[in-house]
Amino acid sequence: MKEPVKTIRETDEEARRLARRLIRAARFAAIGVLEPGTGFPFTSRVLTGVDVDGTPLILVSALSVHTNALVADSRASLLFGEPGKGDPLAHPRITVRTRAETVARSDLNHARLRARFIARHPKAALYADFPDFAFFRMVPESASLNGGFGKAFVLEASDLLITSPAISDLEKIEAEAIAHMNTEHPDAVDTYARLHGKSKTTGWKVCGIDCAGIDLANGDDLLRIEFDTPLEQVSGLRGKLTELSRTL
Amino acid sequence: MKEPVKTIRETDEEARRLARRLIRAARFAAIGVLEPGTGFPFTSRVLTGVDVDGTPLILVSALSVHTNALVADSRASLLFGEPGKGDPLAHPRITVRTRAETVARSDLNHARLRARFIARHPKAALYADFPDFAFFRMVPESASLNGGFGKAFVLEASDLLITSPAISDLEKIEAEAIAHMNTEHPDAVDTYARLHGKSKTTGWKVCGIDCAGIDLANGDDLLRIEFDTPLEQVSGLRGKLTELSRTL
Repeated sequence: MKEPVKTIRETDEEARRLARRLIRAARFAAIGVLEPGTGFPFTSRVLTGVDVDGTPLILVSALSVHTNALVADSRASLLFGEPGKGDPLAHPRITVRTRAETVARSDLNHARLRARFIARHPKAALYADFPDFAFFRMVPESASLNGGFGKAFVLEASDLLITSPAISDLEKIEAEAIAHMNTEHPDAVDTYARLHGKSKTTGWKVCGIDCAGIDLANGDDLLRIEFDTPLEQVSGLRGKLTELSRTL
Repeated sequence: MKEPVKTIRETDEEARRLARRLIRAARFAAIGVLEPGTGFPFTSRVLTGVDVDGTPLILVSALSVHTNALVADSRASLLFGEPGKGDPLAHPRITVRTRAETVARSDLNHARLRARFIARHPKAALYADFPDFAFFRMVPESASLNGGFGKAFVLEASDLLITSPAISDLEKIEAEAIAHMNTEHPDAVDTYARLHGKSKTTGWKVCGIDCAGIDLANGDDLLRIEFDTPLEQVSGLRGKLTELSRTL
């Protein structure tokens, strides 16, 4: 994270897209919190998901250091983007500064968050309903993107979030649309993965649809595909998906 | 990181070995620091090495957020252990609470740290001597080890460090011993990797020797092999290495 003014590049759409893809394609992140009592910066690992508005989600145990820390001080950062082959520092990563908001089971949003999270992490269904587990929405405040050596950007929350008048309408049909794609159009889903993720494998499933794009899963792999422009009306979804088969 | 008392297991030698291997086989870590001014917990990625006494090392740019943070407040945690296939939370990881100590170029230890670090990260030779780069020794205070679901341990600094009367003697011959192994006994080095790291590849090179074990590198892969017991006299090194060819 090279961040002093002189090394920071101007944020462009390419940087925003990279940032969103790092967050939305992630299975996990390193979370930094303040340890209660000492204020020591503590970093650990959490599974992550994404809400319909682009807000990162975590599912954590009340027995963990990070959960106790978030309850005492909601400030936390999430480091997304894992290195592949070669120099670890040549791979893009992003640190998102967030405020953690706990989501009670009685919260109207709980069912949606839970469904979206478990679609990405099917095994989390085994413990998501344990009384000591809870979801947090990690509301972004700002972010530091490092796209590789010398490619540092500072982003605002608005660069990371999804805004569209269609969010609540899409939310109502998301589960149905996902099921439809996975059962009726499995070949199209594999085509998306091939065209947009350079995937050479088949068996991809849609695990999320929001106004900015779709999330695909295949075993341990997650793939985020962003629409060219956000969906403005839910009736436009079919057209957006058709575009994904054609693009490139 | 499940850490409240009731879920913590008693630290045994297996846990200590796992902890050491996670730290000593790592190429990089997530570092958590306190952002100057705000005290916000900031997490980013750093390359890591290990000093002869087991202390983690980092090489960082003065332009980075984490370096500025460490200069203002030396408290930092390092998260080691990357997930492989399957559930990310099933893979072991360790958070080490540390105090960062900068190592000036005039410091008598600088040449040793630099050589050890670059043996692991050959590309770091390109920038290690830039005026804005510096090494820090990240002196452990305690650690939280998570060996997978329900396998949480709390470790002390002494569980992670290497103590032996032979440290300074071994330090003097380390470079020579490494060169000897890599040029005269390449087959033995591959044998270590096969026997102790289940490696199916050849071309491994020794990149570090200390009183507790050896580090091997092969392209992007690092492997840490611990001796059964620490080396107590430098004259015993040959015997320790011979044992590694026989064990299992």
